[in-house]
Amino acid sequence: MNVNGRHYRTIWLNDDGWSVGIIDQTRFPHLFETVTLASAGEAATAIRDMLVRGAPLIGVTAAYGVALAMRADASDAALAAAYELLVKTRPTAINLKWALDEMMRSLKPLPPAARAAAAYRRAAEIADEDVAINQAIGRNGFGIIQAIAAARPGKTINILTHCNAGWLATVDWGTATAPIYTAHDAGLPVHVWVDETRPRNQGASLTAWELLHHGVPHTVIPDNTGGHLMQHGLVDLAIVGTDRTTAQGDVCNKIGTYLKALAAHDNGVPFYVALPSPTIDFNVVDGVKEIPIEQRGGSEVSHMTGRTADGRIETVEIVPRGSQVANFAFDVTPARYVTGLITERGVIAASRDAIAKAFPERAGTRSG
Amino acid sequence: MNVNGRHYRTIWLNDDGWSVGIIDQTRFPHLFETVTLASAGEAATAIRDMLVRGAPLIGVTAAYGVALAMRADASDAALAAAYELLVKTRPTAINLKWALDEMMRSLKPLPPAARAAAAYRRAAEIADEDVAINQAIGRNGFGIIQAIAAARPGKTINILTHCNAGWLATVDWGTATAPIYTAHDAGLPVHVWVDETRPRNQGASLTAWELLHHGVPHTVIPDNTGGHLMQHGLVDLAIVGTDRTTAQGDVCNKIGTYLKALAAHDNGVPFYVALPSPTIDFNVVDGVKEIPIEQRGGSEVSHMTGRTADGRIETVEIVPRGSQVANFAFDVTPARYVTGLITERGVIAASRDAIAKAFPERAGTRSG
Repeated sequence: MNVNGRHYRTIWLNDDGWSVGIIDQTRFPHLFETVTLASAGEAATAIRDMLVRGAPLIGVTAAYGVALAMRADASDAALAAAYELLVKTRPTAINLKWALDEMMRSLKPLPPAARAAAAYRRAAEIADEDVAINQAIGRNGFGIIQAIAAARPGKTINILTHCNAGWLATVDWGTATAPIYTAHDAGLPVHVWVDETRPRNQGASLTAWELLHHGVPHTVIPDNTGGHLMQHGLVDLAIVGTDRTTAQGDVCNKIGTYLKALAAHDNGVPFYVALPSPTIDFNVVDGVKEIPIEQRGGSEVSHMTGRTADGRIETVEIVPRGSQVANFAFDVTPARYVTGLITERGVIAASRDAIAKAFPERAGTRSG
Repeated sequence: MNVNGRHYRTIWLNDDGWSVGIIDQTRFPHLFETVTLASAGEAATAIRDMLVRGAPLIGVTAAYGVALAMRADASDAALAAAYELLVKTRPTAINLKWALDEMMRSLKPLPPAARAAAAYRRAAEIADEDVAINQAIGRNGFGIIQAIAAARPGKTINILTHCNAGWLATVDWGTATAPIYTAHDAGLPVHVWVDETRPRNQGASLTAWELLHHGVPHTVIPDNTGGHLMQHGLVDLAIVGTDRTTAQGDVCNKIGTYLKALAAHDNGVPFYVALPSPTIDFNVVDGVKEIPIEQRGGSEVSHMTGRTADGRIETVEIVPRGSQVANFAFDVTPARYVTGLITERGVIAASRDAIAKAFPERAGTRSG
């Protein structure tokens, strides 16, 4: 989407035809800087240090990492080493492993001399596929927003979102934001309530930044606020992303999503989850019972980073020293609180039947 | 309660017999400093600049402010001037006006020469009454915790709280914390989940500080976390405070309380509200419809203050410049999500009948 009036993707091939450009997302929201990746090692570092984040973008970065490795050395050993190096960078990201397996599958049978070109081609395809999926999600979710707009012509449509399921987490468009950008670009008067999303503040620092640069009206709110807004008719619908969706439609997403879903349910506000179908995990059914929730370092809770009045980036401690902190990264929203899943194949119910019907080629593949 | 091993109240008469000591609560959680108030003007500043906060403590500080004024000049004009000065410091605090009206009622009829002594006496009584009310809340809430402990001997009792309804908001014991301190002091193994409570972080900076200094085991969590904990059986009960309770038991409290009540309801976790009965407003019935919610300055959302690695107190900006922010201070939890009200007269249902029955002398006084 747009930054300073120019269109960007989150990852691209540079004009030299081989090095890879990314946006350094650790600098948000105060600085916009791009970085060049010239080796698989630099791609691995970018993933590990979270210069890139978001499952789809991590996958594409890993794919380009393999391409960079093949350019330097296209031997079987180098291919295996690149896979090993990259797959360890973020152990829980499903797309990472998927993209690397995909690269391995397409490169392994080729003679080494053909691997580099094929790797760049396949990485570019994976990036384009992500964009196509998100555009389809955007079109499908746009229908929901359009219907609300049609019922109240000219009135602002208030959409709440949590965390960052925006274009910065993907190659372009984002998932939860794709319907929003589509509606905004089509001239509908959307306004977005952006949950701050403690403790990592991805709402305040990433989603707000995206919307600001693309020109979408928005307001950052503390995570505590959504329920009050819904009680007072100030939210027309909620759209969030998901890290993992179970076969029955339970949604594992950033911690706090569940609380907003409860408030939406209590106030009759439609609560949608936007997702590319690869995030559906047909091996998991009951999300609350089956999905282990990652616990992250306490400093994300006890410390906060921002910009001082004189422009320095500074980290401050906000919890008394001696107090314990806990940092659960995700929670699970049971399917009964999800109005619908916005997928690349349409808006479907968050139910076992609807999911299996929409993705029959994958629904039968439950393993173990 | 205890600070560095010594018992403190939040406000006290100094050994000189006339000046008033308070804790400077703007310095939490990183510094513990006491301040001496020597005039009504200093008391007014302490309230306005939030060196003291919490409805009961504000009321007592105002009462002592009148006493300090009477010591300097006990004329009718000085009494009226002190009232005017102090009542304007925090326009929405009910206890403030109540305490000042109470001082006016007791001092006005007296000859000026008798006013200073009477004012100090009445201010001390108001402080002691607050302590007695909170101790009664502590005893009554203790019964709930004791019952949970009895059902699972030796097991930790996990209690979630939101914001700071602790002793720092009162003269001593606090409201939501009174049952917790009572249980802890009685040797029950309580552990408190402390909601950070964005945007002002009163949970992380005040409640955590209190519990740390009194030696109560606790863990600070982002506001997004409570639902997940409840889904996984990690919360045995929630106890929160309230700024205003309606005649039918709707609870107006710090923004985000409603979301935790919804999660408690969804997971069968008892959700209690601790309150001194003066916070019941019999003039209001439907809290969501009738209570106007204060909106505060945006900098509380866009900026965060804490301690740098080298010990300086620094404020950093955490929202992109150009993004709008909103800061609603409170929300309303409908009575149907409240398991019970812990009052100084016992634990009662959050219903019109139960409240009227417990406080018959006030229930009939609805005005307007």
